Amino acid sequence: MSQVVPHFRTELEALQRLLLDMGALAEDRLRAVLEGLTQRDVDAIGRVLDGDEPLNQLQLEIDNRCFLLLALHQPMARDLRAIVSAIRINGDLERVGDLAVNIAEAAARFIDFLPFDSWFEVPRMGTIARTMLATSLQALQTRDTALARRVLDTDDTLDALRSDVFRAMLDRMRQEPASVEPLLDLLSVSRHLERIGDHATNIAEDVIFIAEALDVRHQGPDAERA
Amino acid sequence: MSQVVPHFRTELEALQRLLLDMGALAEDRLRAVLEGLTQRDVDAIGRVLDGDEPLNQLQLEIDNRCFLLLALHQPMARDLRAIVSAIRINGDLERVGDLAVNIAEAAARFIDFLPFDSWFEVPRMGTIARTMLATSLQALQTRDTALARRVLDTDDTLDALRSDVFRAMLDRMRQEPASVEPLLDLLSVSRHLERIGDHATNIAEDVIFIAEALDVRHQGPDAERA
Repeated sequence: MSQVVPHFRTELEALQRLLLDMGALAEDRLRAVLEGLTQRDVDAIGRVLDGDEPLNQLQLEIDNRCFLLLALHQPMARDLRAIVSAIRINGDLERVGDLAVNIAEAAARFIDFLPFDSWFEVPRMGTIARTMLATSLQALQTRDTALARRVLDTDDTLDALRSDVFRAMLDRMRQEPASVEPLLDLLSVSRHLERIGDHATNIAEDVIFIAEALDVRHQGPDAERA
Repeated sequence: MSQVVPHFRTELEALQRLLLDMGALAEDRLRAVLEGLTQRDVDAIGRVLDGDEPLNQLQLEIDNRCFLLLALHQPMARDLRAIVSAIRINGDLERVGDLAVNIAEAAARFIDFLPFDSWFEVPRMGTIARTMLATSLQALQTRDTALARRVLDTDDTLDALRSDVFRAMLDRMRQEPASVEPLLDLLSVSRHLERIGDHATNIAEDVIFIAEALDVRHQGPDAERA
């Protein structure tokens, strides 16, 4: 090999690509389980249950590369922010993969017992969570902070929808004891989707940190723009 | 000021202290909400609902210090692992604080409706989760990997207990529609406690990474020692 320490810029770009690959994997698993759900495709759901290993391995690989970049070079400013954020985003994406598995576990139990018209607004929550994740990853790829801020704004919509879904399911469970078991699983799905929205929000906050050196976490929805 | 760039060792020790402060705050909030629950003390529970701000501010401070340490010095080996781990542990502890708030929200709703003898094994889950968190923080303070591995071993116990609790609550809900609402909140508490156990596990894995340069994530319970 001609170089013992590869060129920093090349390595940083490779890290960014791996992180986007990890994002694409997480997105793909969320898409697969949500499509499996709406198409009542038990096989598709089963594939999500088994397929977590590539995402887990990629998480270890990305964290290791972040560590090597910090150890072998002395990244500054925006480059350093990109690496520190990669560590955090990596954790968020791994959790999204876990949550896709959790959704698949719940779905595998209720899909044969719950007609599609009893899913309340959960499919719409799925669409919103998917869009938030996709938008946060697009913002990450292009360092587009306007796009990132759109993700932050959408999070309240998803949280409100989850509260509505909860109230509606609760009423149904009280009226129909036989519906309690499948609805508890559906409720889990709504909760997992809300958490996926939270992880997309974290990623969007990190995009703003990388691009603008601003830490916008723990602020009210309008505080940052005040 | 006599020094523009403070001494690295002093700064690293300050980071470690802040991270342990953050751990103590998270632990304290978990203790407060669990004690509020078992003592049916609505005021104590209310204080947990309001008090998330110090933890949030400390999270920003710690991440900022990690960033400055990486930017101003060129940490190597174990020091670098401690800083990279601090970024991850910081995120775990902030989530434990959020989960304590989530437990308080659920508890505030059900505490007046659910007699203590209807809490299934949730108080025991609380004791286990608290112990896991305390042990992981003690392992972090002393870099004691034997202690950290004890946390990893306990996680399966907590997960199994949560499954048992779920089945028992489900039966009760099917039999008593009036119990559905408070039991859904109790179920949330059991889930939040399981997640706190997961965060304690993450912290324990990071302690092993700091001390032994081993990444033990995503392995079966015995793989690492095989």
